[in-house]
Amino acid sequence: MFKAKIDLTVLKECIESLTAIVDEGKFRLTESGLKLRAVDPANVAMVSFELQRDAFDLFQFAVKESGSEADTDADTEAEAESESKDEIEIGMDFVKFLGILGIGGRDEVELELDEQAQKLFTRMGSLAYTISLLDPSSLRKEPKVPELEFPVQVIIETEMFRRTIRAAEKVGDHIVLGVDGEVFYMETEGEMDKLRLGLKKDQLIQLTPGTVHSLYSLDFISAMSKGMSHVENITLNLGKDYPLRLDFEVAEGKGKVSYLLAPRIENE
Amino acid sequence: MFKAKIDLTVLKECIESLTAIVDEGKFRLTESGLKLRAVDPANVAMVSFELQRDAFDLFQFAVKESGSEADTDADTEAEAESESKDEIEIGMDFVKFLGILGIGGRDEVELELDEQAQKLFTRMGSLAYTISLLDPSSLRKEPKVPELEFPVQVIIETEMFRRTIRAAEKVGDHIVLGVDGEVFYMETEGEMDKLRLGLKKDQLIQLTPGTVHSLYSLDFISAMSKGMSHVENITLNLGKDYPLRLDFEVAEGKGKVSYLLAPRIENE
Amino acid sequence: MFKAKIDLTVLKECIESLTAIVDEGKFRLTESGLKLRAVDPANVAMVSFELQRDAFDLFQFAVKESGSEADTDADTEAEAESESKDEIEIGMDFVKFLGILGIGGRDEVELELDEQAQKLFTRMGSLAYTISLLDPSSLRKEPKVPELEFPVQVIIETEMFRRTIRAAEKVGDHIVLGVDGEVFYMETEGEMDKLRLGLKKDQLIQLTPGTVHSLYSLDFISAMSKGMSHVENITLNLGKDYPLRLDFEVAEGKGKVSYLLAPRIENE
Repeated sequence: MFKAKIDLTVLKECIESLTAIVDEGKFRLTESGLKLRAVDPANVAMVSFELQRDAFDLFQFAVKESGSEADTDADTEAEAESESKDEIEIGMDFVKFLGILGIGGRDEVELELDEQAQKLFTRMGSLAYTISLLDPSSLRKEPKVPELEFPVQVIIETEMFRRTIRAAEKVGDHIVLGVDGEVFYMETEGEMDKLRLGLKKDQLIQLTPGTVHSLYSLDFISAMSKGMSHVENITLNLGKDYPLRLDFEVAEGKGKVSYLLAPRIENE
Repeated sequence: MFKAKIDLTVLKECIESLTAIVDEGKFRLTESGLKLRAVDPANVAMVSFELQRDAFDLFQFAVKESGSEADTDADTEAEAESESKDEIEIGMDFVKFLGILGIGGRDEVELELDEQAQKLFTRMGSLAYTISLLDPSSLRKEPKVPELEFPVQVIIETEMFRRTIRAAEKVGDHIVLGVDGEVFYMETEGEMDKLRLGLKKDQLIQLTPGTVHSLYSLDFISAMSKGMSHVENITLNLGKDYPLRLDFEVAEGKGKVSYLLAPRIENE
Repeated sequence: MFKAKIDLTVLKECIESLTAIVDEGKFRLTESGLKLRAVDPANVAMVSFELQRDAFDLFQFAVKESGSEADTDADTEAEAESESKDEIEIGMDFVKFLGILGIGGRDEVELELDEQAQKLFTRMGSLAYTISLLDPSSLRKEPKVPELEFPVQVIIETEMFRRTIRAAEKVGDHIVLGVDGEVFYMETEGEMDKLRLGLKKDQLIQLTPGTVHSLYSLDFISAMSKGMSHVENITLNLGKDYPLRLDFEVAEGKGKVSYLLAPRIENE
């Protein structure tokens, strides 16, 4: 059983952070909130998402008891496993869900899960949607998060980051993110032109001095930058020829999003 | 002879209500104002339009006298008929006319008909357009309005109606409009999802309680919803598996628009 | 050596006035500022552009001395000629440059030329672009401005001119600009419709009375009208079946733009 109420703007912000990486995926509902971990179809980018139950105005959750009469026959291995974890998995088309939420004005959203029918009942004011869920077993398995250690951390205003990405798209296909001493930089080279953003420590919210840089596909960074349009600051975790982990908070700190992106091999 | 002045916004609102159903059509000009009745090319939707002469800031109208010297030879049967009715028919490309009016800022529009040359002279400030009219005999005949009796009438805020239509377009191809007791509802079912708007009597401006519902093509309802963008309230006249008549006022009550839409057979 | 600072809005306005006619071209940098003269690929329209050095917040310019050690070998005829004129030619892709400037917010732009590498270094706040210049010898030769005498001059509000052009585009492919006594007019005839703007002397900023008119391609006039979006007034220099010269100022009077457009032969 899952029943919840949440601010529409907060829910949109959350789903938007997912659609930056994946079109569909499975939420894990537990007593403590909502979780998701998914990789993009090309296996280059990963999103880890977590929303605490206190981000909701109402949050009711209960896993149906194993062996209850109504469900005995239907119990599959997957369900058994899910129960043992005290969680419910629901598969969703996030792109469609975001489109539906986009109609809803500024209301609160009520969500109610019909596990038997695999439907999510979504109410916004006088509008009620019944959304068919996707079969979780038809969706890709949840990826493992690799163990990573990042020597350098940069906290930057989201708007500055996004503007630079938009500028970089006019120049090239890849982008270097790096730290050189006390300067954070983003650099793109096209066939003809070169773009460089350089920010000193005092132009950033935080910077670990160091000497690292890695090259990334601009397509993915650009997609990520669309998942954080309502976020004030983002944290970039960097290394030398190393993955990028980009963290930010949603739902006024009651939700966390992490994007992980594999580096490209630099041709020098 | 026809010569008139009218507020540009009012005229745009009127023409926009027509282009929701037809691209072209014929106005009947009479002593008392402007009228039009036309069906869409697929014969599924009809628009009836009426604009009183007092919606105009200036309205001069006169049918040329039969048998006057200048016209004797040119008198055709059609003209004779038109005269006998004390009216002038003019054929127009409404889509083009709306585009032209869209350039005009916030001025007043002056209209002047040149019957001989079949041109409509349109002046907005310093800009003057001379528009060639369409030959009325080349346009479809004016349809007859079927006699209908509607057991149920609902008056609803236009914005609520339009928002629901936009939401429904994301879900399915058809929409049910119905009244169940004291609730008015709109319902769309797609392959995967279902959308329902339910409004109680106190969320509506008016409602006749009853039990009726009919299914309509969403394409046509959606087109209609684009013809009423400046209107505050609309009246829905409903029956059981029956046509929909959607009425609203334009020109501050000095004009009336009615859309009539045939129902679809529901597969159950 | 060329190094300059200029307001970003002013520079955008200047480049925009060029892209109305050409995608690329060569600036001539001199002690007194920036100049350009170019024709469109179809040889129908020409732009003459001039920006005084005092439009810049900083303007440093020096032609490298002939026979200096580093350059002796590289000296080509073109360079020799350029030196003799005390000017530097730089070839630019204006469309790309405008796109890059569009990212820059409201900052000041710093420009620095690297003649040896044929790069223009462009800094806006923390963003630095290195733009590869085009080889001036690969670009079309600078056209000669024909000697013209215009009997009639009209000064008109840019917005009125642009609105009429937008309206004319809905009607036809050509436009007549003319003066008839004390009235300036613009007139377009399509297959079906006719549009005419007529402005009396008191609706204009200035008018030389006369009797002239010429026909022009609307495509070119329309392109020109996109190059003056921040300009308040424009001057139209007209004759009978004669080219149009359209003048306006940029950079608060410290820059001048002239468009010259060949007339079309009128079929009557």
